[in-house]
Amino acid sequence: MSCLVVKFGGTSVATIERVMHVARRIQKEKEKGYDIIVVVSAMGKATDMLVDMAHEIMPNPSKREMDTLLTTGEQVTSSLLSIALQSLGLRAQSFTGWQAGVLTEAVPADARILDIQPENVRDALGRGRIAVVAGFQGVDDKNNITTLGRGGSDTTAVALAVALGAKRCDIFTDVDGVYTSDPRYVPKARKLQELSYDEMLELANLGAGVLHPRAVEYAKNYNIPLAVRSSYVADEGTIMREEVEVEKGLVVRGIAFKSDIIRLTVSYDANYNGSLANIFTILADSHINVDLIVQTIIEGVEPSVSFSIIKENLADTIRVLEENKSKLGYSHVHIEENLAKVSIVGSGIVSNPGVAAKMFDRLHRENILVKMVSTSEIKISVVIPQEAMLHAANALHDEFELAASLAIQA
Amino acid sequence: MSCLVVKFGGTSVATIERVMHVARRIQKEKEKGYDIIVVVSAMGKATDMLVDMAHEIMPNPSKREMDTLLTTGEQVTSSLLSIALQSLGLRAQSFTGWQAGVLTEAVPADARILDIQPENVRDALGRGRIAVVAGFQGVDDKNNITTLGRGGSDTTAVALAVALGAKRCDIFTDVDGVYTSDPRYVPKARKLQELSYDEMLELANLGAGVLHPRAVEYAKNYNIPLAVRSSYVADEGTIMREEVEVEKGLVVRGIAFKSDIIRLTVSYDANYNGSLANIFTILADSHINVDLIVQTIIEGVEPSVSFSIIKENLADTIRVLEENKSKLGYSHVHIEENLAKVSIVGSGIVSNPGVAAKMFDRLHRENILVKMVSTSEIKISVVIPQEAMLHAANALHDEFELAASLAIQA
Repeated sequence: MSCLVVKFGGTSVATIERVMHVARRIQKEKEKGYDIIVVVSAMGKATDMLVDMAHEIMPNPSKREMDTLLTTGEQVTSSLLSIALQSLGLRAQSFTGWQAGVLTEAVPADARILDIQPENVRDALGRGRIAVVAGFQGVDDKNNITTLGRGGSDTTAVALAVALGAKRCDIFTDVDGVYTSDPRYVPKARKLQELSYDEMLELANLGAGVLHPRAVEYAKNYNIPLAVRSSYVADEGTIMREEVEVEKGLVVRGIAFKSDIIRLTVSYDANYNGSLANIFTILADSHINVDLIVQTIIEGVEPSVSFSIIKENLADTIRVLEENKSKLGYSHVHIEENLAKVSIVGSGIVSNPGVAAKMFDRLHRENILVKMVSTSEIKISVVIPQEAMLHAANALHDEFELAASLAIQA
Repeated sequence: MSCLVVKFGGTSVATIERVMHVARRIQKEKEKGYDIIVVVSAMGKATDMLVDMAHEIMPNPSKREMDTLLTTGEQVTSSLLSIALQSLGLRAQSFTGWQAGVLTEAVPADARILDIQPENVRDALGRGRIAVVAGFQGVDDKNNITTLGRGGSDTTAVALAVALGAKRCDIFTDVDGVYTSDPRYVPKARKLQELSYDEMLELANLGAGVLHPRAVEYAKNYNIPLAVRSSYVADEGTIMREEVEVEKGLVVRGIAFKSDIIRLTVSYDANYNGSLANIFTILADSHINVDLIVQTIIEGVEPSVSFSIIKENLADTIRVLEENKSKLGYSHVHIEENLAKVSIVGSGIVSNPGVAAKMFDRLHRENILVKMVSTSEIKISVVIPQEAMLHAANALHDEFELAASLAIQA
């Protein structure tokens, strides 16, 4: 029988009432004839409560002990949901990470899954049981309990789907799919029926926030269809696959945006002849993520390099630059705050050379100043003044006719 | 280095403040130079809260899932206490039941420990760490999480003490030791410095309630000294060993009592010639515990058998007797309620034949009617009217001079 992995996040299981709702939802999927593996997060604020208790003892508790502490949250949900399924007359069995054979690196708090040995899960499915697996957790080779870091339950779901050869992995959440843009700020945004893993990765990294990039990468690497669906609305949601049909004339599939971007420009004397790349090595060593980079070397002009960072990293970045000033040999640093990044994402961008021009032209017509540009095969990002962010996002959403295709589909 | 197992119950770790108090208490034991293994229960009402959530879903949830659910309580305490110990600058490592190698029968909710494979715990001790083990839990041969039933954390502590060859197992609790009787009702009751495992077993079974019988049995079988000590008072508590010195002239070491005892008398026709024991086989098959038994067969008189049960079992007992009436062949059943059992316990009873006579004589002088009697090597129990229970307990406490020896010791 073909199997389906379904994952429910913390808000979907925040109360016993919602756990019952999820159980009935699973019952419907089970009635379609699939073997079902459910992956669950901790109930609502359970994880926060556990973190608060530990912080009441000390500000920086051991990561190993935090992992042992926090994984109880998902374990509680897995047993309660199993009981809820049993109360509907279904057979169900809970699994902790180690019971489900989720083997990880020995890296507390942010382990990657190394292997899944799903014999026990497969055995339960063989007995007609729904397997309810605690997400976000695994076990290392020394039998320490580990956690997978942010978005970890999504990764558990995809990894189990891969290990069990599932037909699909459905991530049930409080949104009903992936949108062409954030509908809170781009009123014409519409739900996408499908998109490619790479498009989702760009959207996820750009802050669309629906799925964790690691889970999408995992699905892409093993080519597992991955769907984002609503816990509350009966609807197919958005499905991610390797190859997706480019909807009629639609080269751009989504518009992402992010505020609180800062541009730093590091300038050197005109006669400086070292490498401008040293700065990025030093920042990387300090775990500071640099996003867009623009380098200017014109003969006779002071060489400079500009890069964007997120606001949270500003203090660290300044400190690292000052500590390394003599080593780097720059003359001064200029900081520009209140910027935003707006990106267009679509698999069709690489094969449509006019896309970038169309984007810049529209921004120009809207009187939006482009401060930095970065392009990839499926993405073009611009850094612009923050006050123009939503204006730009809506204008580009119109420009690339993302709303219009809704009419075509209807 | 010799090691010590210390166990803290749920009230001792009910809040973060108390967890810190326990950590400081452990620090003192550690400073004496022992390797320390701590066994912990769930925090205060944590177990009750989890049970309530499951019961909100259905009244009789699966025992397997309840075990998975409830064991998170002890897991939370073990990691929080490890963090608390670390906050004092001590090295500490938490262990779930399966991490500590606690292997049990495949009996959900009431498993017995089959074996402990403490390599990981021993390894942690070897690195100078305090091992903090979640009590009450283990794992069966199919990797199902199991629980040990009532008093399970005490059993975990004793079993670990056996497996690690500990010098002693200290059960820290909210009482400061084992008393000659319940001090709430017998004002002259005093704390015992020591008693034998068998004496403790009789007292525990009779409702002294300090330690679970299974833990005492385990300690007795492997001859591990077992102490009951206060979490709050710095004091040696009461220690149990195989051989204890009989204090000067003190053949009786404790008085136990239990209310809500019911006597059933099953009578047969004078010409009945079957076995009266059949009734106990049938009751045992229905898991009904019968305590005292008195059988009367006098020629020419209707044969009858009387036995005592606890009030909770009355309805079941009546049902089983009625269902089997034709098979058992009895003529009628007489029920006598509002009785109590009072017992004297002491290793010296077997070698002092006058003890029973002294007990009956005193009860007679106090005008207390003895309805049933049962004797063992270290215990004599009587069933009496419930309203005389505390009177009897106090009179016997005086008769056997249990309070007096306090003066001798002082």
